Amino acid sequence: MKSFKFELIHQSKKSRARVGRIHTPHGIIDTPNFVAVGTNATLKALDSVTAEDLGLQLMFCNTYHLMLQPGTEVIKQAGGLHTFINRNQPIITDSGGFQVFSLAYGGVANELKSKGQKKYDNSVLKIDENGVLFRSYRDGSPVLLTPETSVQAQKDLGADIIIPFDELPPYHIDPKALKKSLDRTHRWEKRSLEYHLKNPQNQAMYAVIHGGVDPALRAESAKFLAALPFDGYAIGGSLGKNREEMTQMLAHLMPLLPKDKPNHLLGIGDLPSIDSGVKLGIDTFDCSHPTRSARHGLLFTSQGNLKILNSANKTSFEPIDKTCTCLVCKKYTRAYLHHLFKAKEMTGYSLASLHNLHFMVQLMQDYRAKILRDEI
Amino acid sequence: MKSFKFELIHQSKKSRARVGRIHTPHGIIDTPNFVAVGTNATLKALDSVTAEDLGLQLMFCNTYHLMLQPGTEVIKQAGGLHTFINRNQPIITDSGGFQVFSLAYGGVANELKSKGQKKYDNSVLKIDENGVLFRSYRDGSPVLLTPETSVQAQKDLGADIIIPFDELPPYHIDPKALKKSLDRTHRWEKRSLEYHLKNPQNQAMYAVIHGGVDPALRAESAKFLAALPFDGYAIGGSLGKNREEMTQMLAHLMPLLPKDKPNHLLGIGDLPSIDSGVKLGIDTFDCSHPTRSARHGLLFTSQGNLKILNSANKTSFEPIDKTCTCLVCKKYTRAYLHHLFKAKEMTGYSLASLHNLHFMVQLMQDYRAKILRDEI
Repeated sequence: MKSFKFELIHQSKKSRARVGRIHTPHGIIDTPNFVAVGTNATLKALDSVTAEDLGLQLMFCNTYHLMLQPGTEVIKQAGGLHTFINRNQPIITDSGGFQVFSLAYGGVANELKSKGQKKYDNSVLKIDENGVLFRSYRDGSPVLLTPETSVQAQKDLGADIIIPFDELPPYHIDPKALKKSLDRTHRWEKRSLEYHLKNPQNQAMYAVIHGGVDPALRAESAKFLAALPFDGYAIGGSLGKNREEMTQMLAHLMPLLPKDKPNHLLGIGDLPSIDSGVKLGIDTFDCSHPTRSARHGLLFTSQGNLKILNSANKTSFEPIDKTCTCLVCKKYTRAYLHHLFKAKEMTGYSLASLHNLHFMVQLMQDYRAKILRDEI
Repeated sequence: MKSFKFELIHQSKKSRARVGRIHTPHGIIDTPNFVAVGTNATLKALDSVTAEDLGLQLMFCNTYHLMLQPGTEVIKQAGGLHTFINRNQPIITDSGGFQVFSLAYGGVANELKSKGQKKYDNSVLKIDENGVLFRSYRDGSPVLLTPETSVQAQKDLGADIIIPFDELPPYHIDPKALKKSLDRTHRWEKRSLEYHLKNPQNQAMYAVIHGGVDPALRAESAKFLAALPFDGYAIGGSLGKNREEMTQMLAHLMPLLPKDKPNHLLGIGDLPSIDSGVKLGIDTFDCSHPTRSARHGLLFTSQGNLKILNSANKTSFEPIDKTCTCLVCKKYTRAYLHHLFKAKEMTGYSLASLHNLHFMVQLMQDYRAKILRDEI
């Protein structure tokens, strides 16, 4: 059985950008790359066969959602996630921690707006050294998530890359509490790794660097986690309140990560962030933005974003993007997509998702080509 | 340019069932066949490329819906429906009359329940010899539908087969009113045909036989319309309050239709009705039942219907139907479909629609094979 390996192909002479190849039991991920999010074990509006045809090399599934529906034991019984969803390419799962904490805070954007006034809602019943007891958003039943249960759930799912259990501190947190949260996250990640290494199952585990918006804590987190035998390094938690702060923090953090291991930026994948992230040496980005935008009629093109519901598209018999080679651009016009969105037809959401994901696949291929030529 | 022609291939020795071939400018329709309904110029949850790959030879689009969104002039500008939706196989459109009247009555089922107490709701503003003035369900604006405007709309859409403007009398109607309605429908159909023949545009027009549940009026309608140069004969309106009454009426009516022309049963296509209809000589059936059922998780199999949301499917790692050769049965399990439906993921609706339509294509192919062998 093939196992996990990172191969550095080229380091740009112009920036920290790099081209690499992550080998996994289910094939190769060329980096830098975009990772599509299939929360419920499907890329909303697209099935696995279509996703593979698109050349989407890595798919992100959410352990939290799959624990609650259909349950990780069902997926284990199916033979794991790959078999369950019939995907023959790599999959990454997260620990579930992000969802537990972010659902409790009501999401990052709401939390930012609340200026720290918002406390845990009643979905989190208890947090202690052991882990988190929370209520299922589906039926209210209590669920315990600890480093061990999270990793075990991810063992049942059987993704190629898994994530240790971590705490997601809110953006608005005082320095003392942030340090306390970071220390606990480190203990949880270490426990996760130990549990994982008892039975590696040919999976790779990426650590999650935390430390919020404090550069010193970020450096401490990188140092602590780099000393442990993780297979890669993800960057999690709040990196600032806007893209500028995030870019600054990444510029500070990236040189501190082990260069011989792959890295991943969790949950960020809008186009400008990808552009700055690639130049700072980020290998993979996961984000639901391209598919969610698609379902809201925001289409990516080489000329910028296109709002398909704009009335100008009603009689525009051109493809979404003349330079695009996706099925949607080859077969359908803006006018037809506009009509499908006006009529609220599911076909519109599927076609738009297909187009945006194809755009992302192409975009990342272009980044790799440019890095190989030292253009960025 | 190829034009419309009906070819009778085989008349069963056992029943009125027959195998034929309808030649249209966009290719052949083998009969008997099932016609999928794509009201808004899409088979909900499936795009045109997928529909063609399925071997779905005829698609039904609704003039009423397309007049209101995106407007037939937009589709005309696109180069017609085939170009607009990128379908290279035959399309049939209706006159819009059915929707105007059935939306006014609140649908056939509601009308039956109301025992004739329900009158037109306020969507119909005026009915007279000229046509019907009604309110758009989208924005309330008044729309006039007459034989001439309906046929012109269908000229703009450019389907291979079009339908004359008719009145849909309710099931609960007194004999005198039914006769009056029939006479007007005949005048409207004649006007539609005359308008059509001024500029045939290589389209075929099917008459619609009316007469409600009165066998004498049905016979009168068949006689009146058969004397006019229509290209085929559709059967419309209420045929009875249950399948038995419908079958009786069809047994009475079918021998009265011209045998050298194709016929079509409007809006009926559940499996038992197809079974009795085929044996009575029906050539084509349109119905939204297979796709609507699919979206509600009712899947057709060779062993009968499968309710995918039943908890027994949670850990059933078998295909929907072991004997089925569709993509869904080849690639996915009942357990995965069950999960997608539980999680309310669009992918589930698409895959279920794909499966049910493949089932219908296969079913009709099997009927044709059996008729050729005189088994039915």
